[in-house]
Amino acid sequence: MKRMRALVKTSPDTVELQQVPVPEPDASQVLIRDSAAALCGTDLHVYRWNTWARNAGIQLPVVMGHECCGEVVAAGAAVSGLHPGDKVAVETHIPCGNCLQCRNGEQHICANLKLFSIHTDGCFAEYAVVPGVCARKIPEAISSRVGAVMEPLGTALRSALEMQVAGASVLVTGCGPIGLFAVASAAALGATRIIASDVSPNRLEIAGRMGAHRNVDPGAEDLVAAVLAETGGTGVDAVIEASGNVSAIQQAFRCLRKGGRVALVGLPDRPLELEIGKEVVFKEAKVVGIHGRTMFETWTRMENLLVSGKLDAMPAITHVLPLERWKEGIDLASNATACKVVFEP
Amino acid sequence: MKRMRALVKTSPDTVELQQVPVPEPDASQVLIRDSAAALCGTDLHVYRWNTWARNAGIQLPVVMGHECCGEVVAAGAAVSGLHPGDKVAVETHIPCGNCLQCRNGEQHICANLKLFSIHTDGCFAEYAVVPGVCARKIPEAISSRVGAVMEPLGTALRSALEMQVAGASVLVTGCGPIGLFAVASAAALGATRIIASDVSPNRLEIAGRMGAHRNVDPGAEDLVAAVLAETGGTGVDAVIEASGNVSAIQQAFRCLRKGGRVALVGLPDRPLELEIGKEVVFKEAKVVGIHGRTMFETWTRMENLLVSGKLDAMPAITHVLPLERWKEGIDLASNATACKVVFEP
Amino acid sequence: MKRMRALVKTSPDTVELQQVPVPEPDASQVLIRDSAAALCGTDLHVYRWNTWARNAGIQLPVVMGHECCGEVVAAGAAVSGLHPGDKVAVETHIPCGNCLQCRNGEQHICANLKLFSIHTDGCFAEYAVVPGVCARKIPEAISSRVGAVMEPLGTALRSALEMQVAGASVLVTGCGPIGLFAVASAAALGATRIIASDVSPNRLEIAGRMGAHRNVDPGAEDLVAAVLAETGGTGVDAVIEASGNVSAIQQAFRCLRKGGRVALVGLPDRPLELEIGKEVVFKEAKVVGIHGRTMFETWTRMENLLVSGKLDAMPAITHVLPLERWKEGIDLASNATACKVVFEP
Amino acid sequence: MKRMRALVKTSPDTVELQQVPVPEPDASQVLIRDSAAALCGTDLHVYRWNTWARNAGIQLPVVMGHECCGEVVAAGAAVSGLHPGDKVAVETHIPCGNCLQCRNGEQHICANLKLFSIHTDGCFAEYAVVPGVCARKIPEAISSRVGAVMEPLGTALRSALEMQVAGASVLVTGCGPIGLFAVASAAALGATRIIASDVSPNRLEIAGRMGAHRNVDPGAEDLVAAVLAETGGTGVDAVIEASGNVSAIQQAFRCLRKGGRVALVGLPDRPLELEIGKEVVFKEAKVVGIHGRTMFETWTRMENLLVSGKLDAMPAITHVLPLERWKEGIDLASNATACKVVFEP
Repeated sequence: MKRMRALVKTSPDTVELQQVPVPEPDASQVLIRDSAAALCGTDLHVYRWNTWARNAGIQLPVVMGHECCGEVVAAGAAVSGLHPGDKVAVETHIPCGNCLQCRNGEQHICANLKLFSIHTDGCFAEYAVVPGVCARKIPEAISSRVGAVMEPLGTALRSALEMQVAGASVLVTGCGPIGLFAVASAAALGATRIIASDVSPNRLEIAGRMGAHRNVDPGAEDLVAAVLAETGGTGVDAVIEASGNVSAIQQAFRCLRKGGRVALVGLPDRPLELEIGKEVVFKEAKVVGIHGRTMFETWTRMENLLVSGKLDAMPAITHVLPLERWKEGIDLASNATACKVVFEP
Repeated sequence: MKRMRALVKTSPDTVELQQVPVPEPDASQVLIRDSAAALCGTDLHVYRWNTWARNAGIQLPVVMGHECCGEVVAAGAAVSGLHPGDKVAVETHIPCGNCLQCRNGEQHICANLKLFSIHTDGCFAEYAVVPGVCARKIPEAISSRVGAVMEPLGTALRSALEMQVAGASVLVTGCGPIGLFAVASAAALGATRIIASDVSPNRLEIAGRMGAHRNVDPGAEDLVAAVLAETGGTGVDAVIEASGNVSAIQQAFRCLRKGGRVALVGLPDRPLELEIGKEVVFKEAKVVGIHGRTMFETWTRMENLLVSGKLDAMPAITHVLPLERWKEGIDLASNATACKVVFEP
Repeated sequence: MKRMRALVKTSPDTVELQQVPVPEPDASQVLIRDSAAALCGTDLHVYRWNTWARNAGIQLPVVMGHECCGEVVAAGAAVSGLHPGDKVAVETHIPCGNCLQCRNGEQHICANLKLFSIHTDGCFAEYAVVPGVCARKIPEAISSRVGAVMEPLGTALRSALEMQVAGASVLVTGCGPIGLFAVASAAALGATRIIASDVSPNRLEIAGRMGAHRNVDPGAEDLVAAVLAETGGTGVDAVIEASGNVSAIQQAFRCLRKGGRVALVGLPDRPLELEIGKEVVFKEAKVVGIHGRTMFETWTRMENLLVSGKLDAMPAITHVLPLERWKEGIDLASNATACKVVFEP
Repeated sequence: MKRMRALVKTSPDTVELQQVPVPEPDASQVLIRDSAAALCGTDLHVYRWNTWARNAGIQLPVVMGHECCGEVVAAGAAVSGLHPGDKVAVETHIPCGNCLQCRNGEQHICANLKLFSIHTDGCFAEYAVVPGVCARKIPEAISSRVGAVMEPLGTALRSALEMQVAGASVLVTGCGPIGLFAVASAAALGATRIIASDVSPNRLEIAGRMGAHRNVDPGAEDLVAAVLAETGGTGVDAVIEASGNVSAIQQAFRCLRKGGRVALVGLPDRPLELEIGKEVVFKEAKVVGIHGRTMFETWTRMENLLVSGKLDAMPAITHVLPLERWKEGIDLASNATACKVVFEP
């Protein structure tokens, strides 16, 4: 049996780079050779085995990692439209296909949603098995490194699409990878005033290169005051909230103009207080939760934007490392020096 | 100078039915003879001079009341499209006409919004002066009593329109006048499963007559459990939140299916805790604040629905009284025996 | 090998009720026992083998019929969510699953679309094989006769949904089955003024029972004049064109108000002249072609409407016959005496 | 009485640069000092007094010209939000304010629409009187030359907004000013593949500079074949038809993918044949007529795009002339050498 290197969470306390058998796809799956895989905040949760990870339904041992790009090696008998040699990126939301949401164009929020690398083995390995429905064939013109971050990039792009940013002002709170991708997406879609907030000067600097017109460090200046000043006192047309920070979310609503739109992408770790009457009802705010990419409208537009060069993900990829240096990658991602870390297996 | 009877809030402690001069419209206003005027929760706040009322910017003395129907008596020189004898209902949101919102199709949430009877004298009187832009000519086929409640009815109808209820399940939380009107609106627009919740058996009984298929008293049974049971465990497609009750709002989100829609109409009196991650992001909830009627798309559809008989506001109008019996009206509206009280000046 | 009765188009000149083998489903298909099947205009084209039928890509012999309801007898290994005993209706659009449209939420207009009973055997038989993706499980509360017409009913309902008919006026041109279903759908969704046009008094009479407020026989009165008179000279808010008649289409655009919406459902048999400048550009008409039901948002709402009783398809089903009397059914459907004919195999 | 130079259509055969009295605004109007005014195809019709012009309801003599930018000199008593010194561009659609369309957010397609310079005097003059509702205050950062073309630019931008071009392919047929502006708008909004067609090599060259990725001269190559080749046989996601040419419109529909969108902006001079069944119904095309800019959502986004530099109108302005050289301007605009000609009075 062929074997491969894989980064495995073996126990609550242990992560190891191991030799494990190359997995075999069933009729509905494909086997891919991973060419690049990106580190996500979720991977850090699993690494640290925090409360979220302990309750996520993960069966140990598990191969870590879910954002990746690779090449199809073998496709199951029931998989159509994919062939060995196809370049693919992985959609990490695994739909059941039969629930109300799956049958109504919302399979990315399937009632019985499974997540790649949480409910299955993942992609920090030489090979990975992926459900056929989740292996998205992408153009050769998209590099593997960019292919590896299309999952978070798609979440950001979808937020910008929902926010109707053309000719509008946008506040992006939180400049981690999704926030930075949201800045770039908003810029590509014609947002005319992009304000980015984060406490990290590194990330704000990248935001500027990706299209932000104004950076705000909420530790150094008042975010609400800054946004109102930038918008003549009116507030922004749209907010893309990518921090998950409770205070940022509360401030984001105060930055919004009457009639404005909010995309909530970041996941706060606790319930939060909102002044619903003042900030939502009186403002007639339109708020939408974004948990992923539509399958696959978002991908179609994203691929076109990447191939055309109108959207560039590279400035947010600050580090590319061989998988052997996984520990260094995790350390880099744990502080705000790095933004997106990509492993090449 | 001609005089008229008017219900006047004269001081923090006093409301009196007085003889006052009939007001005169300026060039941009119309004078109407009130034929019916309805009592709203806001009027109770003003009557009691509670915290909200004290901070609302009201200049005493003020003629109370803002929901009304009447006949144009005189129109200012700059008012077009209105003539003596026209039957009108009053849109209570007074837009400035020049702000971003007013110039972008959102004048009902004008940045400098004034409210009829808060920033002007109101309509619990024989005559009232109304800005020309807010005097909506309505068909003669709509009775004055119904004309008097078109303002809250329109808020409810707009919520149902935004929620895309055709062939869908809808939870309406709170069966005060707006909640009941939301039930009737959802029914008229093809909602196929309407669940209404309130603690008042009277109001739930009316909800049943207006189109609710299932009533829930959240004091007697668990709302979330009841809704999940009614929807096969999926949750409702849409919620219209018309109670403003903190607990109801929190439960409403838990009743929502993944991908569902929420209209927030009720005004909670304090900030409230929401599990944004679980109830908005993961669910990809689409939440919209509703502060009024669009000017005047909502009115156009509402008039058509009323004239056709597809929408009937009457079951929620439980009491019609002459203005002299205003104190009785306020007492009735203060407890859940009455629903909508209409005065006939 | 088990055999069954089936109505077979055996040659350009011949249709016969034959004994043929019960078909066997492959891994992706289901076998259903047909309980009711409805006659469609397309079946008449195949029967007569007209120009359209000769060029449709039909391989003779073929079992005729595509609108049907039945019970799952066996499901292929790759089919999920369907089990023997399930009541199903048939979605007749067979998507490829891999084209741009299929991967972007538009599989009902798949670039490589196949049609049930055109590119496969159909359902005028005791049993039929149906692609798993096209076998839609429906509630038991929907009768087989109604289940058999859900395909055209869904087309009509989708038109009404796209036209945003709540509180609006609607002109439905052509009162064949789809037109009548469009009348009923518009009524269920809150259309407040429904004008139906057809040259058949029988069908207009049914239109009245299904919700039309005004009938127009364009042979007896001027359609445009009648519609303008009904709408105070403004024109209708929306048109659902279900006749495919060139003159009706042209008149329908003249009946439309500025800013109105048009759903084109009927298929004209030749190119037609339109005054694009006057009727589309100056009016800013919003025109949408409707070729089928979305898979399966339309079905979800349709099932809810049928089960709730808000939508009733029965008045348009004028005849129910055993399959043996197929020739009588075809004769009935060929003239305007009958509307929808349903066979029970 | 103060006098000014003005280009006047004095009789069917005559256009003259005359000295005429400076007009006086009434209470609802403003007087502006024109700083730049652009020549439109409509002006050529009036100049030549063709069939369209003879039937347009023009009262001679009339001051020609409707696209312009200027400075407010005086504002009528009933005009709010405008003050002497304000820089304004002119919205040329004059709404009545009282019709169904005006009261439903569609005043730009008012049922009783009047057009600036057709039903009023125009702006090829030192001064012009403009209805207050049509004088749009614009940022100082927008140059007068660009301000003068915001009317056609807005029509183009609105088309691009309606077509949802982000990450999509777009065909723009016709590269006159509106077509070129549509190319630039689509590019600014994230269209990833823009194909421009025109018979003029000059205009195609400008299209390339404004964002087109591929130019097609339909006189030299087959447009439909070229578009299909560019899109892998699928067809474009969206078409913006800006030629008004019958053949171009017919071909545009054949270039469209199934599920695609079409904005019809150009005005054909005669009815045209369309294969409704094949090109609209089977494709489920979404077709929208565009007659102008929404008042004033389109303007808001346009101003932001211009100020941010994301949208640049200048490449289409090929000639700037003093008003004295009006005849030269008309000659230039009559052939495809020039694109947009701007006069500076």
